[in-house]
Amino acid sequence: MNEPNVSYDVLSPVKFLTRSAFVYPDKLAVVHGEKRYTYKEFAERIYRLANALKNKGIGKGDKVAFICPNIPPMLEAHYAVPMIGAALVSVNIRLASGEVSYIVDHSDAKLVVVDSEFASLVQTNELSKVENYVTVCDVDDTRTLEGMEYEEFLQTGSPEAPDFDIDSEDQLLAINYTSGTTGRPKGVMYHHRGAYLNAIGEVLESGLTASSSYLWTLPMFHCNGWCFTWGVTAVGATHVCLRAVVADDIFRLIDQEDVTHLCAAPTVLIMMSTWPKASEVKMKRTLNIMTAGAPPAPTIISNVEAMGANITHTYGLTEVYGPHSVCAWQPTWEKLSKEEKAIVKSRQGVPFVLTHYMDVVNPVTMEPVARDGQAMGEIVMRGNNVMTGYYKDTESTAEAFAGGWFHSGDLAVMHPDGYVQIMDRKKDIIISGGENISTVEVENVIYGHPDVQEVAVVPVPDDKWGEVVKAFIVPKAGKNPLPEDIINFTKERLARFKAPKYIEFGELPKTATGKIQKFKLREKEWEGKKRIN
Amino acid sequence: MNEPNVSYDVLSPVKFLTRSAFVYPDKLAVVHGEKRYTYKEFAERIYRLANALKNKGIGKGDKVAFICPNIPPMLEAHYAVPMIGAALVSVNIRLASGEVSYIVDHSDAKLVVVDSEFASLVQTNELSKVENYVTVCDVDDTRTLEGMEYEEFLQTGSPEAPDFDIDSEDQLLAINYTSGTTGRPKGVMYHHRGAYLNAIGEVLESGLTASSSYLWTLPMFHCNGWCFTWGVTAVGATHVCLRAVVADDIFRLIDQEDVTHLCAAPTVLIMMSTWPKASEVKMKRTLNIMTAGAPPAPTIISNVEAMGANITHTYGLTEVYGPHSVCAWQPTWEKLSKEEKAIVKSRQGVPFVLTHYMDVVNPVTMEPVARDGQAMGEIVMRGNNVMTGYYKDTESTAEAFAGGWFHSGDLAVMHPDGYVQIMDRKKDIIISGGENISTVEVENVIYGHPDVQEVAVVPVPDDKWGEVVKAFIVPKAGKNPLPEDIINFTKERLARFKAPKYIEFGELPKTATGKIQKFKLREKEWEGKKRIN
Repeated sequence: MNEPNVSYDVLSPVKFLTRSAFVYPDKLAVVHGEKRYTYKEFAERIYRLANALKNKGIGKGDKVAFICPNIPPMLEAHYAVPMIGAALVSVNIRLASGEVSYIVDHSDAKLVVVDSEFASLVQTNELSKVENYVTVCDVDDTRTLEGMEYEEFLQTGSPEAPDFDIDSEDQLLAINYTSGTTGRPKGVMYHHRGAYLNAIGEVLESGLTASSSYLWTLPMFHCNGWCFTWGVTAVGATHVCLRAVVADDIFRLIDQEDVTHLCAAPTVLIMMSTWPKASEVKMKRTLNIMTAGAPPAPTIISNVEAMGANITHTYGLTEVYGPHSVCAWQPTWEKLSKEEKAIVKSRQGVPFVLTHYMDVVNPVTMEPVARDGQAMGEIVMRGNNVMTGYYKDTESTAEAFAGGWFHSGDLAVMHPDGYVQIMDRKKDIIISGGENISTVEVENVIYGHPDVQEVAVVPVPDDKWGEVVKAFIVPKAGKNPLPEDIINFTKERLARFKAPKYIEFGELPKTATGKIQKFKLREKEWEGKKRIN
Repeated sequence: MNEPNVSYDVLSPVKFLTRSAFVYPDKLAVVHGEKRYTYKEFAERIYRLANALKNKGIGKGDKVAFICPNIPPMLEAHYAVPMIGAALVSVNIRLASGEVSYIVDHSDAKLVVVDSEFASLVQTNELSKVENYVTVCDVDDTRTLEGMEYEEFLQTGSPEAPDFDIDSEDQLLAINYTSGTTGRPKGVMYHHRGAYLNAIGEVLESGLTASSSYLWTLPMFHCNGWCFTWGVTAVGATHVCLRAVVADDIFRLIDQEDVTHLCAAPTVLIMMSTWPKASEVKMKRTLNIMTAGAPPAPTIISNVEAMGANITHTYGLTEVYGPHSVCAWQPTWEKLSKEEKAIVKSRQGVPFVLTHYMDVVNPVTMEPVARDGQAMGEIVMRGNNVMTGYYKDTESTAEAFAGGWFHSGDLAVMHPDGYVQIMDRKKDIIISGGENISTVEVENVIYGHPDVQEVAVVPVPDDKWGEVVKAFIVPKAGKNPLPEDIINFTKERLARFKAPKYIEFGELPKTATGKIQKFKLREKEWEGKKRIN
């Protein structure tokens, strides 16, 4: 990057900042409550951070951990850290302190930046490699850790752009730890090339432009916010920060900041569609929502679109930098009814223009399954946006890359039109009397019941069938459906063996990124028993 | 490309076809008169062409020349030829046969595909390296050359996708010969990486999506149609072919085919704005026009936008794969008057998100000029979309790349906001009594005169001042302005020494790509005299 070659330039998402600071110095880059930074100010804060980190001895090959919600310092980290050749470790703020310790220590982070609200997650006595702490005082000034406050720390760095220390496209950019439903979190390694291309890919699929305003409902610690941390900056759009995912704030900011785009897990869409004033919402500009993480139920898609939103359903994993496939719209679908549209939209779709490779295969033979919407196989991917591997874990990397493809662990069918539809996580599928039952399929039907807010379906042991279906349900506020209502509702719409035999009402356990932790429900049901799957 | 690596994939624009044929098999890919090909049909024709070429012994490292207007075979060439590892040579159909012979021979093309209308350009006796000819019979069935007809030729190839023979991103993809105002045309070499990234860059800047319809007003032989040959396919939009640039056809197709995008040199915009029925035109959908090639006069911008078009002004050269910079819109410009808007829009602007590097420098010291809108320097560029060099011409390559940048040969200023504005070609600038006069600046003023359709300003010898300004003018139909009208009009708007001393009315000589050939006007004026510039 320092020695110019006329016809070659290292692809790096850090350069998006340079360009937007040059082209749009006075345009609004970041909004956070009352705070507003232009691209010039945003760049200067980033340069200060980069120089301050350099002053602390951070450079090529080092790691810097950030433990923050979606506030400006998190965005700044996405440029300042890789700019000086270091790698960013964005830690999930919803983890327990033991998990945080494991990640910070495993990543070899030398410096940790933590928001004061989450300072208690940092157990300094367990972190022998960390040399410095910086505390962000965003909502309160309490500081329990040694070291400087973030704004103070920025003042120690010059606002001049440092020399970028990026030599090669495959230089390590970030390590993102999987939320890991079982076992230790794994450190997924991203490089500059992958993040650059994936950020551009997200921009293309989402239709972001310089006049867009992007609301940060998706955690930035989740695949670097699906690379939108870089994509929004690339086109010179505005980042609207959101410290906590609260429906009132979401709707207020959509209105106040003219929000045109957001990304969200289906749980956030559920929150939006069940907001008490949801029926009164009419968006001023079309709100483009990109969702992924779990297949959204068709009912939820139609509810949220009724407000003036347009939902694009995508699918991906941490290992592929976030979304990799999109349920690309077909002109022939215009003729479908609203309900039919929601059904086709709930599929995981086809690869992005920039991701290109996805297939559904027999995970042992690697042979593609029939394109019949019936034959189940594992979703596999490859390409520039596939991680380079798990940090310090060659064994897991080799396993994930068996047969020359990345194995997603998701079971799916491929429809005759080439669209992929997830049936289940490999570990979640129910095998009842020899029949495969997709828990997702059963959940989608139950979501259609008017009294249901949220549902998770898991297998429970059964002497006759091996396992049978059980549904855990969160009813809508004020609703008290009976188990047989739900069971009958399902039987009317699915093969009888797919209907739940048991229903339980109550809260659902969730991961830090809002995914329902079916394994917890399952473990409880299978205590002391051995499940073959 | 044949041995999959999980985390790395060669960037190649050929893959856009694979993806669109998979995702949008039944969507309209190409329209040409009554002919309509879906993406599945388009891909099959391309695979047939690729296999037919292979059967003729074409493969890795070979060159194939196409001499065709904007018809389907030209689009097909952009995929079939590079797919099998060969390089495409798209020859300008407006050249003389001697120039065509030089290009075909210099490029080492082994096979030539020519449209029957242009078969007379092919002098087979001068082309010893060519082994096979194929004639496209698009408008007539006359065949003067030996060899097969194009559709017959396609039938000799299998419709199955061949194995792609693309090993590396920097593999040669195309050679595009500059129109060369002086001297022999030079063969500009493009690679797969550059074309992939530039095509994506054009898509981003133009806002192409799957629902777009793109009209081929820009010749595909010109920088591979600014890489839109690949970009339109990338997003699964529709290519609307246009054999000849005729205003009636342009407006008819915009209406019939719901055209949303086109690219055009300013001469095409002039043609559109002076079309007899121009004042009645009201676009159904916004027509996004990307223009470049010469700075469009502000008057023309406002005329065409009045029809419902939105003009994006870009700037580039063959050596940078077409447009490299864009006059990116600033929110603060909303407040400007229509005329002021047209003026800011006529600047060449800032680098694309994906091109990134452009500067205005002293071409000797390579020092950037002051950002004051006054200091003139040369526009230089570098990055992934800069050619790898001139084919078989290391000397010209070294000269063009002096100092680690590509030298455009365009003289410009940089405004305080970082926007570049071309003042002139290095060779066109007028030096009168020691003062630099930008011919473009003078032309822009004269374009504001109500009787002027087209104008070109050149220096003519003058005993006192060394050189002075002369304007060659094409008046609007039915208008007969007097020379002094024009001279006074200019003096009221510019420094007196910049006003033309002489005016001549009549036609203007143009290059094959529609650029006015000022050097021809200049040569006539300077016959027998020596110009220092």
